[in-house]
Amino acid sequence: MSANLYATPEDAETAFYDAIERADLEAMMAVWADDEEVACVHPAGQRLIGLAAVRESWRHVFANGARLRVRVSHQLCWNSALMAVHNVVETLYLGDDPTPHGPMHATNVFIRGANGWRLLCHHSSTASEAPTSESTSTTHTLH
Amino acid sequence: MSANLYATPEDAETAFYDAIERADLEAMMAVWADDEEVACVHPAGQRLIGLAAVRESWRHVFANGARLRVRVSHQLCWNSALMAVHNVVETLYLGDDPTPHGPMHATNVFIRGANGWRLLCHHSSTASEAPTSESTSTTHTLH
Repeated sequence: MSANLYATPEDAETAFYDAIERADLEAMMAVWADDEEVACVHPAGQRLIGLAAVRESWRHVFANGARLRVRVSHQLCWNSALMAVHNVVETLYLGDDPTPHGPMHATNVFIRGANGWRLLCHHSSTASEAPTSESTSTTHTLH
Repeated sequence: MSANLYATPEDAETAFYDAIERADLEAMMAVWADDEEVACVHPAGQRLIGLAAVRESWRHVFANGARLRVRVSHQLCWNSALMAVHNVVETLYLGDDPTPHGPMHATNVFIRGANGWRLLCHHSSTASEAPTSESTSTTHTLH
């Protein structure tokens, strides 16, 4: 889908949220694994399976026209050689409005292939409340 | 936490949903990895981090007294040597009432350790609608 090479799961995750911020559908789809059955669960509760359905859902999101920025915090990372899973808190901002929306909880699953790390699954859902502490990040490497 | 050994991610997942059905807190906690920072996102939107918080949340769920059964369907599985991720549809039943509740989308993350496969992360959220096709299961093994 793209010549972009993400050397780490973090690079792929950054590219994912950058694509949202730029409402760039091609950049968004370049982040997803193209050789696996990918899945995306949106906060409204739809589960999309496969690249075509995932693309169509993001096309709809971006077609709304509202610029969307996502600040990621409170990251938990579990990394192994071929797969990595991040569980994060997403805070959303619309346009230039500094009012935070959400937060959301997201689980992002990445795989390492011939072209680096790609997104396999994004599961996002509404959080009940804002996290209680400031931004933290915890990484576990599994041996 | 337990001498239970789950030979596959599927075994650990089955034990997880069995523990819910039996409202068995010790069986529930035996499924979770005890050497990692585990995370559990409940459908109401709370994120619990660490075994003590996860235990307390399930103690609350089970203390409600309502017997809860979960039917798992529409499973997507991504398996590697040390980690596995399942994205499933959960349909809930309360007591002996055959009325289905939910459905929910759940992402379950497993790691393989010295004592077999354990649950690292369970992220469950309300689905917008029932899946359109009958129960399916798809497994990808990553090389």
